[in-house]
Amino acid sequence: MKVTVKVPATTANLGPGFDCLGLALPLYNEITVEETVMPGSGIEINIIDDNETFDVLSVPKDSNNLAYKAIELLYNFIGQTANDIKITIKTNIPVARGLGSSASVIVGGLIAANELLGKPADNAVLLSIASEVEGHPDNVTPAMFGGFCLSSVEDDGSVVYSKIEWPKNWKITVLIPDYELDTKIARSVLPENISIQDAAFNIRKCAMIIDAVYRKDSESMKKALKDKLHQPYREKLINGFKELQELLQNKENILGCVVSGAGPTILVISENDGFEKVENEVKQIFDDLNVNCDIRTYEIENEGTLVI
Amino acid sequence: MKVTVKVPATTANLGPGFDCLGLALPLYNEITVEETVMPGSGIEINIIDDNETFDVLSVPKDSNNLAYKAIELLYNFIGQTANDIKITIKTNIPVARGLGSSASVIVGGLIAANELLGKPADNAVLLSIASEVEGHPDNVTPAMFGGFCLSSVEDDGSVVYSKIEWPKNWKITVLIPDYELDTKIARSVLPENISIQDAAFNIRKCAMIIDAVYRKDSESMKKALKDKLHQPYREKLINGFKELQELLQNKENILGCVVSGAGPTILVISENDGFEKVENEVKQIFDDLNVNCDIRTYEIENEGTLVI
Repeated sequence: MKVTVKVPATTANLGPGFDCLGLALPLYNEITVEETVMPGSGIEINIIDDNETFDVLSVPKDSNNLAYKAIELLYNFIGQTANDIKITIKTNIPVARGLGSSASVIVGGLIAANELLGKPADNAVLLSIASEVEGHPDNVTPAMFGGFCLSSVEDDGSVVYSKIEWPKNWKITVLIPDYELDTKIARSVLPENISIQDAAFNIRKCAMIIDAVYRKDSESMKKALKDKLHQPYREKLINGFKELQELLQNKENILGCVVSGAGPTILVISENDGFEKVENEVKQIFDDLNVNCDIRTYEIENEGTLVI
Repeated sequence: MKVTVKVPATTANLGPGFDCLGLALPLYNEITVEETVMPGSGIEINIIDDNETFDVLSVPKDSNNLAYKAIELLYNFIGQTANDIKITIKTNIPVARGLGSSASVIVGGLIAANELLGKPADNAVLLSIASEVEGHPDNVTPAMFGGFCLSSVEDDGSVVYSKIEWPKNWKITVLIPDYELDTKIARSVLPENISIQDAAFNIRKCAMIIDAVYRKDSESMKKALKDKLHQPYREKLINGFKELQELLQNKENILGCVVSGAGPTILVISENDGFEKVENEVKQIFDDLNVNCDIRTYEIENEGTLVI
C-alpha cells in the first residue's frame, strides 16, 4: 500500500513578515510514501527529477532526509518506529532557492504517511511536527493548507495559524536565479540584534500587510511590503535585488519586490498586468548582471497538500 | 469666535504593537480654541480640572504647550502665525498615566483651530502634524478617529492608518494607579537593540492582533497579546503588572493584560463579564502593594474627536 500527495511550493517572509508570513504557489512536488513489504529492508529514498535542473545528489537519502525525519516523529507520536519506509520524491520545486522545497517534502512525507497509517494525527499535530523539523512554520503552513497564511509557533510547540483570503488580482512573480543559496548561509549573515526602531518598523509593516490583505487595499500593500530585519543584510547575497527594487519602486500596479524566504529567488507582487509591462526591463537587469533567471508569474495556490 | 471639541483618551501599544496600535476610550478632554480679540495679547492657556486629581501645574502654559505647538504648525501650514490664541483645556483624562492625555490636547487643539480657520487642512495634514508633535502616531490616530487603529508614519512624514472594527463584547478595563510615570523615563529604560528573535516574536504577535480583531477570534487574541519589546523592560516601573499578568493568565474570558502606552496604567482586555469575575482578586493585588488604583471598565470609543 502506498500514498502519493502533491504539495505546493511556498514563499515566506513577504518582506517584513519574518518567520510568520507565507503563501503557496501552483508549482508542486509529489511525494509517495509506502511501507516496504520486507521487514528489515530499511529506509529507501528515491528522487525523480524529470526536469534535471536541480542538484538532487545533495538531497540526503538516509535517516537525515527531512521527509523521513518528519515521518519518524509521526511514527513516534503513535508509539511506533518508522523502520521500513520507501519515500519517492518527484521534484518540480527548485531546491535551495527560497521556494519551500524542504517544507514541501516534510509536509508531503508527513501527510502521506499519516494517510497510510489511517490518519492517527490531526492537522494540529502534523503542523507542529512539520514546523519542528523545518525550524519555522511560515513555509509548512501554506504548504499544508494553501493560500496566504500567518503562523506562529507557541511556547508549547503548537502552531497557530490563520489563512486569509488573498486578492484574486494580486499576482506573484518569482524570479528564480540559476544559483543556489543555502538557508544556513542566508541565516548566518543576519545580525544577532537589531535596533528597536528597525524592530518597530517591521512590526507595523507586517501588521499593515495583514490589514491590506483583509481590505484588498493595493495602496496600503505597497507601503507595507518593506523590511528592515533581514533583506538589508541578505541584499549582497542576492544578485539584482537592489537594482530590481529601484526599478520597480514607482511602477504602476507593482505592489512590491521582496526576497522569497531566505533567497536567492526574488518575488514581485503585482496587480493585474503590472508585471507584464515591466518584464523586459526586469530581464535586462539580470542580463546585465549575467545571471540566468527563470521568471514565472503565478496566481496564488489555494488548495495546499492533496492526496492524488 | 471660538470652537470647542471633545477628544477621547487613548491607549497605545496593546502589547506587541509598539508605536503602531491604539484604541480610543470613552473618557474625554474638552479643548476650546479662540483667537483673542486684541492683537498682541499673546498666548493664553487655561486648564480646568474639576476633578482636582491631577497635577495641572505641570502642564506648560506658554509656547511649549503641546496644543499650542500643534496649532502653530497648522498656522504655518497655511502661511500664517499663531500669535494671539487662547486655549482652554477642560481635563478629565489623567496626565502622565499612559492614557493619551498629550495626544488628546494635541488633536483637540489642532481640530478646534482648523475649524476656527474654516477647515484649511484635511485629515491627512492634521494627522501628520499631530503625529509630528506627539512623536508617534499610535495615540493621535484613535484620538482623531476613535476605535481601534493601526497607524504608521511613512518616510515623508505622512501617516497611513486603518480603523478596524473592534468586537463589541471585548471590553477594556483600565487600572489607573495614583502615581505618574513620565514617558521620557519609560522610554529611557528601553534598550537600544533587541534580539532578532524577540523582534520576530513581536512581529508575528502584532500581526496576530490584526488578524484576531478582523476575525473577532478571542482564542487567537489571547495568544497575540504578548510582548517582548517594551513590557519586560518597563515591568519594574509598573507596580503590580507582573502579579496581575500571573493572576490573569488562565482566567476565563480574559484576553490579556498589557501596559497602556508607556504606563503606569495597566490594561486588561476581557470578553463579556470576564473582568467582573476577577475584579476582587485584582483589587487585592493592588491593596497588597499599597497602590491606590482607579479601576474602570469601558467599551471602546468609536466617534473620535467631535466639535461640540
